Amino acid sequence: MINKDTQLCMSLSGRPGNFGTRFQNSLYQQLNLNYIYKAFTTNSIQDAITGIRALAIRGCAISMPFKESCIPFLDELTDSVKAIDSVNTIVNNGGYLKAYNTDYTAIRKLINQYKLAPKQSVIIHGSGGMAKAVIAAFHDAGFKDVTILARNSEKGLQLSQKYHYPHQTTPQKNYDILVNATSIGMDGGEEAKQLSFSRELISQATVIFEVVAIPTNTPLINEAKRQHKIMITGKEVMILQAVEQFILYTGKIPSAEQIRIAAEIASQPL
Amino acid sequence: MINKDTQLCMSLSGRPGNFGTRFQNSLYQQLNLNYIYKAFTTNSIQDAITGIRALAIRGCAISMPFKESCIPFLDELTDSVKAIDSVNTIVNNGGYLKAYNTDYTAIRKLINQYKLAPKQSVIIHGSGGMAKAVIAAFHDAGFKDVTILARNSEKGLQLSQKYHYPHQTTPQKNYDILVNATSIGMDGGEEAKQLSFSRELISQATVIFEVVAIPTNTPLINEAKRQHKIMITGKEVMILQAVEQFILYTGKIPSAEQIRIAAEIASQPL
Repeated sequence: MINKDTQLCMSLSGRPGNFGTRFQNSLYQQLNLNYIYKAFTTNSIQDAITGIRALAIRGCAISMPFKESCIPFLDELTDSVKAIDSVNTIVNNGGYLKAYNTDYTAIRKLINQYKLAPKQSVIIHGSGGMAKAVIAAFHDAGFKDVTILARNSEKGLQLSQKYHYPHQTTPQKNYDILVNATSIGMDGGEEAKQLSFSRELISQATVIFEVVAIPTNTPLINEAKRQHKIMITGKEVMILQAVEQFILYTGKIPSAEQIRIAAEIASQPL
Repeated sequence: MINKDTQLCMSLSGRPGNFGTRFQNSLYQQLNLNYIYKAFTTNSIQDAITGIRALAIRGCAISMPFKESCIPFLDELTDSVKAIDSVNTIVNNGGYLKAYNTDYTAIRKLINQYKLAPKQSVIIHGSGGMAKAVIAAFHDAGFKDVTILARNSEKGLQLSQKYHYPHQTTPQKNYDILVNATSIGMDGGEEAKQLSFSRELISQATVIFEVVAIPTNTPLINEAKRQHKIMITGKEVMILQAVEQFILYTGKIPSAEQIRIAAEIASQPL
């Protein structure tokens, strides 16, 4: 039951969804924490952050289109945020707002968990906020043979110069690891039914790493299944980054079983 | 279960309590409304209201010490607010903030409900925000023989000039209706054990109207009970004004039984 000591955590995004709200609230309930979580949108990111500070809202997840525009209003940026100019998490310690990028952290963890090796060749499709997190994560994990596949050649060039990775607008060779960090395959998008990489490129790869989380089974994942590839799904990224947020907000570490239950609840249709 | 469409209502006060949070949440649950309510405090009333607007928080109860200081940041003041310069409720319609004073409304309703008659003589003890609401309510209900008993003689004079009621620092005669609108008798206050009016004045009165809500049985109410007087308690004011807030936020009218249950839940010790 909510009382005066209940802590509020929240999200800010252009199109609020239910995953974060249900995932975090489920963990609060399972761990018996006096927290609630609710999704918000806003017309003014500056005013919204003023409100987070003034109302002592404990934490805030940041999604599109606020991942970069929120930065001027925060007090401290962690290294991953500085590296990729993209915030997805704010923690409020008594009015002092510290920014994190738990997408970056989650991708680092998945690289370790799936034992992806720095000697493997990688192609990363995309040049937006999520692509920046993916490129930085592979870079910081020591990967040398990384290619940036960017439809936006200006952004591709910028990322290429920053990380000293080549960039292309179409793949020139085969790669061990294919990463989709575009919105291709995302529910409701214009390219929902498209494949981020060709069937042939998939056939020559070992690992298919999908960042799109909704739906879990994107065309890329379905093709990877048909071809019996090692797959890392966007849902894994989404859950892992949400767990990182939960830990940052509450200081508590949920068990694997508690995470599984929360993810199941958060993934149910409304 | 909270989801992306859940509306947030809140309160802002110097010392958040649990009554509003539990009362409103109980009604939301009983009426099956997708709302949640939580108490907040703030260091900056301006920034807090900026946040209410930017986050589309549906409604906000305002308590001490923000009842006057919030006024410059709102878009529209209803007549009762203009009359008494004291806000206790903000309703947010798409970023347009309209201010109400449901204490005033509640006192007007209690005057009707207990059939207090304009020909009865009234003494109102106090000169703060709640006293202003009480004086305005009796004034607007047509009471002519009203005396303001103000320890702060400057504020007493201001109210006296505004409403053309005499003001005194000690009662000079007997009255039919005694109203305590000071914090005398309030839990945790320096005057928690004191009587707002003398036993003799109480003995000559017909109705004892207490505005202090915590505890329900203030020294004044206990004395009124002993003397078998007609009593109106601060708890009745608190519940009635909270119901008015609920109606303003949700547009729904709870039943008497739903209100009784919510008040019972809100009044339980933690």
